[in-house]
Amino acid sequence: MTIHHHNHPYMTIHDFESNSHVGWDNSLKPIAEVDSGQTITYEITEASGGQFTKNATKKDVETLDFSKINPVSGPVYVKGAEPGDTLEIEMLNFSQLDWGWTALIPGFGLLADEFKEPAIKSFDLTGKNKMEFLDGIDLFIKPFPGTMGVALPEPGNHSIVPPRKNGGNMDTRHLTRGTKLYLPVWVEGALFSIGDTHAVMGDGEVCGTAVEASMETTIRFKLHKGKSIAEPRYEIPGPPTPEADSRGYYVTTGHGKDLYKASQNAIRYMIEHLVDTYRMSEVEAYMLCSLSVDLRINEIVNQPNCLVSAFLPNSIFR
Amino acid sequence: MTIHHHNHPYMTIHDFESNSHVGWDNSLKPIAEVDSGQTITYEITEASGGQFTKNATKKDVETLDFSKINPVSGPVYVKGAEPGDTLEIEMLNFSQLDWGWTALIPGFGLLADEFKEPAIKSFDLTGKNKMEFLDGIDLFIKPFPGTMGVALPEPGNHSIVPPRKNGGNMDTRHLTRGTKLYLPVWVEGALFSIGDTHAVMGDGEVCGTAVEASMETTIRFKLHKGKSIAEPRYEIPGPPTPEADSRGYYVTTGHGKDLYKASQNAIRYMIEHLVDTYRMSEVEAYMLCSLSVDLRINEIVNQPNCLVSAFLPNSIFR
Repeated sequence: MTIHHHNHPYMTIHDFESNSHVGWDNSLKPIAEVDSGQTITYEITEASGGQFTKNATKKDVETLDFSKINPVSGPVYVKGAEPGDTLEIEMLNFSQLDWGWTALIPGFGLLADEFKEPAIKSFDLTGKNKMEFLDGIDLFIKPFPGTMGVALPEPGNHSIVPPRKNGGNMDTRHLTRGTKLYLPVWVEGALFSIGDTHAVMGDGEVCGTAVEASMETTIRFKLHKGKSIAEPRYEIPGPPTPEADSRGYYVTTGHGKDLYKASQNAIRYMIEHLVDTYRMSEVEAYMLCSLSVDLRINEIVNQPNCLVSAFLPNSIFR
Repeated sequence: MTIHHHNHPYMTIHDFESNSHVGWDNSLKPIAEVDSGQTITYEITEASGGQFTKNATKKDVETLDFSKINPVSGPVYVKGAEPGDTLEIEMLNFSQLDWGWTALIPGFGLLADEFKEPAIKSFDLTGKNKMEFLDGIDLFIKPFPGTMGVALPEPGNHSIVPPRKNGGNMDTRHLTRGTKLYLPVWVEGALFSIGDTHAVMGDGEVCGTAVEASMETTIRFKLHKGKSIAEPRYEIPGPPTPEADSRGYYVTTGHGKDLYKASQNAIRYMIEHLVDTYRMSEVEAYMLCSLSVDLRINEIVNQPNCLVSAFLPNSIFR
C-alpha cells in the first residue's frame, strides 16, 4: 500500500488501486493525513473494481471475483479525531462521469430467489442531468458515494458489504452534492475510507446494484470534538428529490408482519405494473425499481401488520 | 344500523354513530348504495369515537374503551362491483377541522416498552394550513383518512386495527387531497367503509397516533371492472410533501438485521436530537416524531444489515 503525505488544504488522491482496500480493519496504515476543514478529491473506481467494462456481458457477471468488489480508497487519518468525536463529511462535487452499469448478481438482491440468472446493462452517463434507461425512460443523474465509513473499534477485518455503526456501505441515495454526513469516530484518527460511487439509485437499491460508475468525488472534512453519536446521521439542505417529485408517483404497497417481506411484495407488484404498462422485461423492471423506486414505511404501529410503499416517479417517463 | 338509500350523484352521510362499525365483516348491511362516479361527503368522527374532548387528560387515556376505537362509516355498496375488480377512491376534499388530539396509549407505538405512561395533547386546527405543536414549531395540516377499506372475503369480524389486503387502517399520510387510492374488491358490492381522519402525520406514525381529528371528507368512487390487484395501490399527482421539503431535513439512521429494530433506533436517536436541540420533553419529542418524521428504507440488500432513515423537516421550526 502506497502512503502519500500531502498536507495541502486541497488534496487529490489518484491511483485508486494502490490506495484501496475491501474491508474495515483498524490496523490498516493511513494513505494520507488531513486536518479538519480540508478538502479531498478522490478518483474513485466503480464497485466491480475495474472488472466490468462498458461492454460487459452476463458471462462477466458469472465470473466476477467477489474478493475484489466494493473497494474503498483510504484510510485517511483525520488529525485530532478521537473516539467519541463526530466526523462531518460534506459532499462538494461529483464529476468525470462517463458510463455506468447495473447488474443482477445471483444470490444478491431483494428478490434473489426469483431472479436467479445473471444480467448486466450499461448506460451512457455523458448527458448533463439524465441518462436513458430504455427508449422513453430517462433517469436523473444524482451521484453519491455508496460507501463512506471509518475504522471500527473491534480488531480484525470486517466485511465491506453491510452498513454498520461506522457508516460503511450505507448506499443512501440522499448523500448527494450539498449534503453533510456525520459519522461517529471509533478509533484515533477516524481512518476514513470512501468508494462505491453511484450515478443513479432509488431508496432500497432493490436489485442489489445502483448505476455503478467511476467518478471524481470531492468532499470536505470537519471534526466535531466531543459531539458523540451512536450511528450515522445526515443533513439535506433542501428538497431531497425535486426532479423525481415533479410529476407525482405511482405507488404499490405491501403489508404484513415483516417489513422485509412487505417490501418484497410492494416491489413484486411494481415489477408487474412496469411489465404490464411499459412492455419491458421483468429483468429490466427489477433493475428500474432499483434505480428509481423509493421504499417508504408508511405504517409501523398497527400490530400485527406494517405497511410499506414503493414510489415510482412519473417524471422518468417521457 | 340505519340504512339510507340515496341515489344522488352527491350524497352526504351524516350520523356517524349510527352508520359506523369497528371491524371488517362482510355480513354487515350496507348503509347506502352508490354508482361508479358518485361522490360522497362523510361527517367523520375522530378515532376515539367521541371518547376524547378538547380538554382530555391522561386519565381519559387510561379509561379509553378499546372496543370503540377507530370506528368507520359504512359499509357502502358499490353497484356492479365484483371480486377481481378494483375500486378507485379519489380524495376530493377535507373540511370543518376544529381540533385534534395525539396520545401515547400504553402498549401501543414503536417504542411502547420505553413510553409506558399515558399522555395526550390537544391542538387547535382552525388555522388555514398550519397548527402549533409547541411555541416555535408549526406543523402543516394535510388531512387524510387513516382507514379506508372494503369487506374481506373471509367470514366473521376482523379487527379494524391492522392494515390488510382490503386496505383498512393503512394510516398512509400520502392519501391527501388529489390522490387516488385503488383497493382490490373481494366481495360483491365491495362494501367500502372510511374513518380515522388525520390532520397531521409523518410516515410511520411512530407514537401510535396522528393528530386525530373529526372532519368532513369528500371522496369519489370509480369502479375499474376486470382490473385486478392483490393489494392496495395509489397515485399522487405531484410532489408528495413540498411544504415539508422546502428547507431540507435532519436525518438519523438505524442499521441492523431487522428493519423494525433499525426503525426503533433511528427514532430513538431523533428523540435524543429533539430533546437536546429544542428543549422539549421526551414525550413531546416522541409525539413530534409521530406527527412530522418520515421513515424511509435506504438500503435493503446489503446482507445481513438494512438501513432505515428518519427524516425531520427543518421547515417545521420557525
